[in-house]
Amino acid sequence: MDDPQFDVLAIGNAIVDVMARADDDLLVRLGLAKGTMHLIDAERAEALYAAMGPAMEASGGSAGNTAAGLASLGGRAAFIGKVADDTLGQFYRHDMRAGGVAFDTAPLVDGAPTARSMILITPDGERTMNTYLGACHALGPADIDEAVVVAAAITYLEGYLWDPPEAKKAFRRAADIAHAAGRQVSLTLSDPFCVDRFRGEFLDLIKSGTVDIVFANDSELRSLYETATLDTAVAALQSDCRLAVVTLGGDGAMVVSRDRVAKVKATPVEALVDLTGAGDLFAAGFLLGVARGMPLTDAARLGTLAAAEVIGHMGPRPAAALGDLARQAGFEIP
Amino acid sequence: MDDPQFDVLAIGNAIVDVMARADDDLLVRLGLAKGTMHLIDAERAEALYAAMGPAMEASGGSAGNTAAGLASLGGRAAFIGKVADDTLGQFYRHDMRAGGVAFDTAPLVDGAPTARSMILITPDGERTMNTYLGACHALGPADIDEAVVVAAAITYLEGYLWDPPEAKKAFRRAADIAHAAGRQVSLTLSDPFCVDRFRGEFLDLIKSGTVDIVFANDSELRSLYETATLDTAVAALQSDCRLAVVTLGGDGAMVVSRDRVAKVKATPVEALVDLTGAGDLFAAGFLLGVARGMPLTDAARLGTLAAAEVIGHMGPRPAAALGDLARQAGFEIP
Repeated sequence: MDDPQFDVLAIGNAIVDVMARADDDLLVRLGLAKGTMHLIDAERAEALYAAMGPAMEASGGSAGNTAAGLASLGGRAAFIGKVADDTLGQFYRHDMRAGGVAFDTAPLVDGAPTARSMILITPDGERTMNTYLGACHALGPADIDEAVVVAAAITYLEGYLWDPPEAKKAFRRAADIAHAAGRQVSLTLSDPFCVDRFRGEFLDLIKSGTVDIVFANDSELRSLYETATLDTAVAALQSDCRLAVVTLGGDGAMVVSRDRVAKVKATPVEALVDLTGAGDLFAAGFLLGVARGMPLTDAARLGTLAAAEVIGHMGPRPAAALGDLARQAGFEIP
Repeated sequence: MDDPQFDVLAIGNAIVDVMARADDDLLVRLGLAKGTMHLIDAERAEALYAAMGPAMEASGGSAGNTAAGLASLGGRAAFIGKVADDTLGQFYRHDMRAGGVAFDTAPLVDGAPTARSMILITPDGERTMNTYLGACHALGPADIDEAVVVAAAITYLEGYLWDPPEAKKAFRRAADIAHAAGRQVSLTLSDPFCVDRFRGEFLDLIKSGTVDIVFANDSELRSLYETATLDTAVAALQSDCRLAVVTLGGDGAMVVSRDRVAKVKATPVEALVDLTGAGDLFAAGFLLGVARGMPLTDAARLGTLAAAEVIGHMGPRPAAALGDLARQAGFEIP
């Protein structure tokens, strides 16, 4: 097996975030469950946008944020995702490449527009996402570049890929190629409602060893195992999976391996502005640490450092060079 | 004369900001004068964008920012500016209306795309703008809605309107309508290079009384009167113009009327993040104060409060409700 050219290949829905501050009242009026992702069609998108305040736009998408965070940490990142051949698609491609991420997926021509997620950010920093998937529906197995998968130490996939019908085939193809090349595969459960939509399939991916490293937060994990008790869910995960991380927001994270559950604290944040990207950036730090052979708890700490940066400002991707922050915090990334 | 329906009608180039952090080195490599606005064509836009880091987008444009700031303060604002019938134009219209600004200018169909400005923000918070005017070139006298001009206590125009050839005709038409209705007209000089391009015409607008209230910063004013000495320039302005404000960045502002020059201090800022919109938001506060008959120095203090908010975060428009901030700071806006 060759030395990998990339630390991580991230595969996910390529989405432009349209972000606005909102009161809790607005969420109630719009019938939105706070902190989760809602899939919407073009008509609903129009109605929500009309109800939303002045917005800012930034490239986002869960796996895309992870790739951008990994590059910002100094890692070698690639991304596969489907934008359209339109203005937002051009923005998305620019932001990826300008951040140092290899991104060569062909854009969709003469189809749906680039995906966008209308994100309502409440005063508590929580974000509620409303995603119109648009061109992401066109991501399929043909978009998986075998050479890139083979060249990546870890292929990282988002659970949201289960929503557009062809993307799960792309997911499975990527996992097969990665394993055939002796590489690792990682999955984030993405969202508790996403877990609810695809629970059986996600459990099968984990139990069958199709994925090696699982990311979940508290509510996603409890949804997966249909239990109100985190400890029960963690024990089940420990038995089903070789390596996992459970993120706990302000309480840090748990690294769950076969023989051990290790906790790390969250990195303190001066002011919590916007939680968008917190889990994605945690994954960036942890995956880079794993790809470079760092002790798992150090990798998790690198994850909390990256997450802390992104929640201190508006937008789903780092505003500062994370590699510099990591060095200042004493991390030595091999 | 009827009571005005709007405090301010702002007329300017409708521009989407594409903002990225940049080192000073990048400005040098790109041959850009820091802190100013450069007009670029589509080809140069492509080259600059390729050299720029990951970006965020937000609706901007000088007069547009002023209208948005005025509405955020609780004022009644209208805006006239030309976007295209494209995605960025839809964003722009949404952001204006969602912020409470009346904006009904017909979009350009089958022409140039919505204008964008690539803004490089250096670690000192200074912004260097590179503007592709696109659809703004199509703004003309026919876009000036007479009823809206008549309904506004003050019509506020940006000096940047002198760049697209038809817009200055729109400017003159708006000023004529406003004065015929007994309303006031205000002009911002916009940028020292803009002043250099149109010095004679700007001086004529001021001396002829086509504009009643002038906004300038230190460098714009010294460029207007071609002097290195601020005091000389202020004295000339005082003789040429009934009312003016000279903004001095961290040193506050001077209110210049026929018989008096009054200084106000800047509102302290915890961390200077992005100077984009500082002058525009100052104008929002000052104009609202004037429209509501506040003492001029109080109006200027309202301007410094609005400016301080916008430079504390990325983006050219307020992130907080400025009316709430003003009340907390003890302002009573009539």
